Amino acid sequence: MTLKVIVRSIRTLSYVGGYKKIKDRPIKLYCAALVGAGYMAYNQHKKNTAEMKEIIQLSNYMAEPITPVDQLEKNRDDMKTQMELLIMRIQAEFCRALEKEEDEAWKDEKTVDEYDFDNDIYLPHPDAKFKVDRWMRKEGGGGITCVLQDGRVFEKAGVNISVVSGKLPPAAVQQMRSRGKKLENSELPFFAAGVSAVIHPRNPMVPTIHFNYRYFEVQDKDGVQWWFGGGTDLTPYYLDEQDAQHFHLTLKHACDEHDTAYYPKFKKWCDDYFSIPHRGERRGVGGIFFDDVDYPSQQEAFKFVTSCAEAVVPSYIPIVKKHKDAAYGYYERQWQLVRRGRYVEFNLIYDRGTKFGLHTPDARYESILMSLPLNAKWEYMHEIKPNSPEAELMKVLKQPRDWLNIEKGQSQAQRSTA
Amino acid sequence: MTLKVIVRSIRTLSYVGGYKKIKDRPIKLYCAALVGAGYMAYNQHKKNTAEMKEIIQLSNYMAEPITPVDQLEKNRDDMKTQMELLIMRIQAEFCRALEKEEDEAWKDEKTVDEYDFDNDIYLPHPDAKFKVDRWMRKEGGGGITCVLQDGRVFEKAGVNISVVSGKLPPAAVQQMRSRGKKLENSELPFFAAGVSAVIHPRNPMVPTIHFNYRYFEVQDKDGVQWWFGGGTDLTPYYLDEQDAQHFHLTLKHACDEHDTAYYPKFKKWCDDYFSIPHRGERRGVGGIFFDDVDYPSQQEAFKFVTSCAEAVVPSYIPIVKKHKDAAYGYYERQWQLVRRGRYVEFNLIYDRGTKFGLHTPDARYESILMSLPLNAKWEYMHEIKPNSPEAELMKVLKQPRDWLNIEKGQSQAQRSTA
Repeated sequence: MTLKVIVRSIRTLSYVGGYKKIKDRPIKLYCAALVGAGYMAYNQHKKNTAEMKEIIQLSNYMAEPITPVDQLEKNRDDMKTQMELLIMRIQAEFCRALEKEEDEAWKDEKTVDEYDFDNDIYLPHPDAKFKVDRWMRKEGGGGITCVLQDGRVFEKAGVNISVVSGKLPPAAVQQMRSRGKKLENSELPFFAAGVSAVIHPRNPMVPTIHFNYRYFEVQDKDGVQWWFGGGTDLTPYYLDEQDAQHFHLTLKHACDEHDTAYYPKFKKWCDDYFSIPHRGERRGVGGIFFDDVDYPSQQEAFKFVTSCAEAVVPSYIPIVKKHKDAAYGYYERQWQLVRRGRYVEFNLIYDRGTKFGLHTPDARYESILMSLPLNAKWEYMHEIKPNSPEAELMKVLKQPRDWLNIEKGQSQAQRSTA
Repeated sequence: MTLKVIVRSIRTLSYVGGYKKIKDRPIKLYCAALVGAGYMAYNQHKKNTAEMKEIIQLSNYMAEPITPVDQLEKNRDDMKTQMELLIMRIQAEFCRALEKEEDEAWKDEKTVDEYDFDNDIYLPHPDAKFKVDRWMRKEGGGGITCVLQDGRVFEKAGVNISVVSGKLPPAAVQQMRSRGKKLENSELPFFAAGVSAVIHPRNPMVPTIHFNYRYFEVQDKDGVQWWFGGGTDLTPYYLDEQDAQHFHLTLKHACDEHDTAYYPKFKKWCDDYFSIPHRGERRGVGGIFFDDVDYPSQQEAFKFVTSCAEAVVPSYIPIVKKHKDAAYGYYERQWQLVRRGRYVEFNLIYDRGTKFGLHTPDARYESILMSLPLNAKWEYMHEIKPNSPEAELMKVLKQPRDWLNIEKGQSQAQRSTA
C-alpha cells in the first residue's frame, strides 16, 4: 500500500516536472493530483496517529485507553480527550511510583527461583506488581482498574480510571439539581471521566491516601454543562505533624499556582466532607476537596485539576519512604485495623461517590469497593489510653487543625493592615 | 416505720374490739381506721412490688429494667410493660445459652490461677462472659447492651435491648407514612422497645445468626397506633443443608402456632430483605422477617412475637453445638472473613435499622454497630473454585431455596384437590 502510494507520487512529480506534456493528457494529470493530495492527507493522518501512539507509548499507560485511539486523535482538542489522557497518565505515574517502593522492599528477599539466568536479571516479584483489569460497560465506556494486594509495603492499593457515557437517570439528574445545577428534569446524556485511588499501606506508621479527580458533562436542551471535581486527603493511624504539614503544603502549592483562594476554601470543604457524624470525628487529617469547578474557564479549570493530580506523588511518596520501615507491633496493627473499620464506615455510609456508584445499575462493584481495606476490625467500645499516640491522633480527628497556620497568618495580616 | 404501723394497727384493733368506747372518742377511731386502711394499701403495694421483684429475680435479667420497677408494676397490663419484660427475658436467656457454650469450651483450659480455693470452684473465665452496659438516653428511655468479644466459641456476640420514647422527627414520620401508615405529618410522640442480636462465631463451620423483635407505638390526633416487627435469619459460611432445614423448621413451628400463612409469607419477606443488590446475592440462607404486624389483635400479635423470640435458642444452639469443634484451616478462615465483609456491606449500606439508628441524633452508635464482625476482609476480585464448598454456598445465596419444600407441597396439595 505505502509502496504503491510512493510509486504514484513519483509519477505525479514526473508529470508535474514534464509540464509541456500536461495539455496532452489532462485526465491523467487530475488523477495524479488527486492521488498526490490523498497521499498528503494519508501521511498527515499517519503522522498524527504516530504522534498519538507516541504519547501513549511514552506515558506507558497501564492499558489501552478506553476510547479508541483514532477517536482520541480526531477529537484531540476536546476536553473529554484531554481528561482521558490526563487520568491515564496520572494512573500510570502513580502505579509506577508505588511499584517502585514495592520493588525496593522485595530486593533483599529475592531467591534463586526468581533469577532469570538467560537474561541475568531478577524477575519482578508477582505480588509487587499491579493487577490490571480493563473493563467495558454495556451502556458506554469502561475503565481500567489496577490493584496491588498483599504487597510488602502496600496491603491494598487500588488505582482506578473510568471513562463512561450514557443517559443519566432522572434520580441522578435530580441529585445534580439539588446541588444547584440548572438542568432539565429528565433523562439526560452525560459523560464522566475520572481517576480515583485509595492506598492502604501495611505499616501502621504510613498513612492511607485517597484521591479522585473527575470531569463531568451533561447535555440538556440549553446545551452542554461541564464541571470538574476532586480532591486528595490523608488518613494517618499515628500522627506525624511534619507529614501533615508536608502533605498540605504540597497541595497548597498546587492550588496557589491557580488561585490563592483555592487552598483555604477546598481545605475546609475537605474537613467538612470526610466526616463520620455518628462518631463525631473526621476520617483523617484532610487535604483538599472540591466540586462544581467550572471557572475561570474550561482550560484553566483543567490546568488546575492537572496541577492537583500531579501533586499526588510528591505529597505522598516521601511520607511512604520515611515510615515504611518504622518499627511497630501487635498493638499498633490492632489500632490500624480499628481505624480501617472507621474508613469502611465512612465509605459505605456517607461517601457520595460510593453510594452513587453502587446504586447505578450494572455498576462494576469490584472497582467501586477496591477502596475498602484488605482487613478491618470492629471492637465493641474500643478504648484508648489518655495521652497515648492514639489519643493524640483522635484529638486531630475530633478537631481539624489549620496545618499551615493560614488563619493565624490571615488574622496577623488583617491586624497589620488595620 | 413498719414497727410503728404494727403498733398502730394493734391499737386500731383494740379500739374496734372495745366498741362501747367508740362513741366517747370518735376522732381517735377515725384516725385509727385511716391508719389501718393505709396499712392495708401499703401492704398490698409491698406484696405487688415483691411479686414484681420476684419476676425480675427469677428471670435473672442482664441488668435492671430500663423502666423503673414500680412503674412496670403499675402498668403491668400495658403492652409497653409486657414487651419490655419479654425482651429482657429473651436477652437473658439467649446470653446465658451462649455463655454456657463458652464455659464448656473453656472447661479444659482452666488453670490454677482461676481456681478459687476458698470456695472450691473454678472462677468463670473473663472472656467467656458478656460485658453488660446499661445506658440511658437523654430524650427518654435507654437500653442494655451485652457483648461477648474474643471468646473461644464466639468471636463477637452482641445482644441488645432498647426501650426508648420521645418525639419522632417529621422525617421519620414521613418514612412510616411512605410504608402505608396513616399518620399526621408532624413531630409525634413514640415508644419503641426491641431486642436485637448478632452472633459471629469463631469457627467458620458455625453460621452467624441475627434476630430482632420490636414493638412500636406512635401517637397522633386520632390516638395510638401500634405494631410489631422482627425476624430471625442465618448466615452460614459453609452450607449444611440439614442446618438450614432445622433452622427454618423451628421458625415455621413458631409461626404455625399462630397462622399457617405466616411462615411462607415471612420467609419470602426475609429473602427479599436481606439482599445485597450490587452483588446480586442474599446475605445468608434467610429465615423469617416481618413488619407492621398489628393483627389479629394486640395480645395475639404479642403472643406470635413471643413464640418467634422463644424459637431463637432452639433454632440456633443445636447448630452451634454440632459444628463448634469442626476442623478448619487458614483457607476456611479467609473465606469466612471475606463473607463477613459482605455482612458489613449489607448492614452499612442497606439495613434500614442501622441507617435509621445512625441518622438519629444522639444515637448510641456502639450499640448499633455491635452487629459488625470483629474482623472482616475485602479482597479485590476474590475468586472461588467451581464445585467447591464455597461455590455450593454461593449457589444458595444467588438463588434462595425453599428449604421445607413448602411450594412443592402446596402444588401437590393443589393437584390432589383438582
